[in-house]
Amino acid sequence: MSLIVQKYGGTSIGSVERIQNVAERIAKKSRKGNEVVVVVSAMSGETDRLIKLARQMTSDPDQREMDMLISTGERVTIALLAMALQALGCKAQSFTGRQVGILTDSMHTRARIEEIKADRLRQALSEGVIPVVAGFQGINQKSDVTTLGRGGSDTTAVALAAALKADLCEIYTDVDGVYTTDPNIVSAARRIPKISYEGMLEMASLGAKVLQTRSVEFAMKYRVPVHVRSSFNEGPGTLVTQEDADMEQEIVSGITYNKDQAKVTLVGVPDRPGVASMIFGAISKEEMNVDMIIQNVGQAGLTDLSFTLPKEDARRAKDILLKLDKELGIKNIALNEKIAKVSLVGVGMRSHSGVAAKMFACLSTEGINIMMISTSEIKISCVIESKYTELAVRTLHDNFGLGENQAPKSESATG
Amino acid sequence: MSLIVQKYGGTSIGSVERIQNVAERIAKKSRKGNEVVVVVSAMSGETDRLIKLARQMTSDPDQREMDMLISTGERVTIALLAMALQALGCKAQSFTGRQVGILTDSMHTRARIEEIKADRLRQALSEGVIPVVAGFQGINQKSDVTTLGRGGSDTTAVALAAALKADLCEIYTDVDGVYTTDPNIVSAARRIPKISYEGMLEMASLGAKVLQTRSVEFAMKYRVPVHVRSSFNEGPGTLVTQEDADMEQEIVSGITYNKDQAKVTLVGVPDRPGVASMIFGAISKEEMNVDMIIQNVGQAGLTDLSFTLPKEDARRAKDILLKLDKELGIKNIALNEKIAKVSLVGVGMRSHSGVAAKMFACLSTEGINIMMISTSEIKISCVIESKYTELAVRTLHDNFGLGENQAPKSESATG
Repeated sequence: MSLIVQKYGGTSIGSVERIQNVAERIAKKSRKGNEVVVVVSAMSGETDRLIKLARQMTSDPDQREMDMLISTGERVTIALLAMALQALGCKAQSFTGRQVGILTDSMHTRARIEEIKADRLRQALSEGVIPVVAGFQGINQKSDVTTLGRGGSDTTAVALAAALKADLCEIYTDVDGVYTTDPNIVSAARRIPKISYEGMLEMASLGAKVLQTRSVEFAMKYRVPVHVRSSFNEGPGTLVTQEDADMEQEIVSGITYNKDQAKVTLVGVPDRPGVASMIFGAISKEEMNVDMIIQNVGQAGLTDLSFTLPKEDARRAKDILLKLDKELGIKNIALNEKIAKVSLVGVGMRSHSGVAAKMFACLSTEGINIMMISTSEIKISCVIESKYTELAVRTLHDNFGLGENQAPKSESATG
Repeated sequence: MSLIVQKYGGTSIGSVERIQNVAERIAKKSRKGNEVVVVVSAMSGETDRLIKLARQMTSDPDQREMDMLISTGERVTIALLAMALQALGCKAQSFTGRQVGILTDSMHTRARIEEIKADRLRQALSEGVIPVVAGFQGINQKSDVTTLGRGGSDTTAVALAAALKADLCEIYTDVDGVYTTDPNIVSAARRIPKISYEGMLEMASLGAKVLQTRSVEFAMKYRVPVHVRSSFNEGPGTLVTQEDADMEQEIVSGITYNKDQAKVTLVGVPDRPGVASMIFGAISKEEMNVDMIIQNVGQAGLTDLSFTLPKEDARRAKDILLKLDKELGIKNIALNEKIAKVSLVGVGMRSHSGVAAKMFACLSTEGINIMMISTSEIKISCVIESKYTELAVRTLHDNFGLGENQAPKSESATG
């Protein structure tokens, strides 16, 4: 008998019929003798509907009220799914984030889980009940409702799996698993049968929108195996787990891209200690997340500084820097919103040299200019002009042998 | 400075625009220096929408899950109204039933309030915050969400007013107040400016759907003055309060009717001790509420017994009685669903004789046969054929001088 946490996303439970299908899937798993804990999101479209209502009230809704509002979507689905399970003869009960003891900090709309007191869940399981838990939500110390940010139900599921020491956390979604790259761009993109936490983390944070980044961090920290699967078919999906020998043989496991960033360049920055800290201090004070930072070699006491950050923050960042201008004496501040970041991800890079050189050569062959480069142990990212995104992804996917007919060893074993 | 609890019903907050109107009304009251606590229902139609979803899952949804589901509607409106108030520059905060400490029993979908720990409300008020509280809901000892039954937000409002020792509880609704009878039947029906708790209780439980009966009981118990007003105009509404001299002068304050009941008649019931208790014991065990009971004088050891109960329960009651048939040896069980109950209500009846006789005469003049009669200190009810309902209401309204041009003393003083 295994203890399995299953999470179903918004499209998986987007209608009465789909909720009933999900109920049948859960019932099947339960009847096979497994203990099942279910985590659900709101029905697709519901959270957006609520946000729209809020924006009609005020252009800048209070975050605490926002959480009160948008946490209702999951309460609706847990009740409906529990009913559907009961209709199939299962003992099921719905629980809110509070009821299963998900305690968070007080950062409304993007709270972080601090503690899980899963007593009530354990009690329910011991009574043979299938608990259906509202994802995405918790309460803070004041007992106010908080939410965990977009995709937060993934984190709820993994965190509960960790707290309950579950054997597996299954994330059911509307895609078949994690792909080597976006199948909309590269038709030969291949499902990755197995990926390490580290690899998935890079894939997720770089734009593969299958799992919330935080959920992967949680899974890695508590060593929870996470299985990403489609709720519309019985395909094998992608297993996110600890690195093993198979994975090391794959140098590159996937290619991601991100078109949501902009590049800010400060020309003629005084090259003296404290300047960078002043610049990025001012930006982080406004809670904007800078991604890549590059500083050119200075000449005549001046240097150029470029960084990327989410497009939606770019203009605000520029305004902040313009205010610093007098103090700093920057010659020019340029904003480029037509950029894209293309990245190679793979744990095998650690032990293989020449990956970066090959990447740069591929892009150069296609006439694509590289504007910024950043590397980590298992990732290489290049910022390029956004119009070349698809071309870059295709050529890299092809050259690194990730296509359907170039299946590496581990794929044939599982697929 | 007064402390006022205001409650807004579903139609009063049925759209973004209406929520904004309500916010302005509250802001006005607050700016005049009053402390205001607001209680809201779900947006009109929302609770029905959720119930419909539940019925699509299963024909007989679990009551605990039902409460989890339908309690979401109020959470949406408290958040939206708090945002609308904030947009007007008010300090406002939303609170769920749990957060303001509304503790109930565990009768899901029709729970009763057992205790109110209003600490958090008092705290909010002391900080100058306008608390916006979700009506209709509380939690039980297990910390599960419960709801108080249709119209339960009225009870939330009155109960909070009692707990906070508020000066007034204002119930904003889509009607101008409590009327002498249904204006759809009698165009001359008159708004009652002031009515006693006892009178309102009879009016409410007999079918005048302005206030939930339980809210009036609460108001009476804790002597909370309740002001029923329209949220769409500035009319004077109806004040529900302790009986005073004015009220005693009005013999009859209103006429109500109820077409939702059926009559069950047991013919040839053995006239011996324990039979009635067996019959009504079996029925109350199924949680059906019997209203009127009449037993004819027995002949030859047999008697006829009639009672009324909600139409929806009538067939089930008949089935239960048929099962008792062998033990009891009843000759016949007849069910009549085409009945109506018409009632006169008024505290002045206590000190005025002849009201019943006049009522019977009025009905008889119109050729309306009386099937059952029941009386209390301040009410006389007659069961008649339902097709005569409108005729009966009109003739009684007219004969007891309740019409627009027959305004008694207290009306001219207020209206």
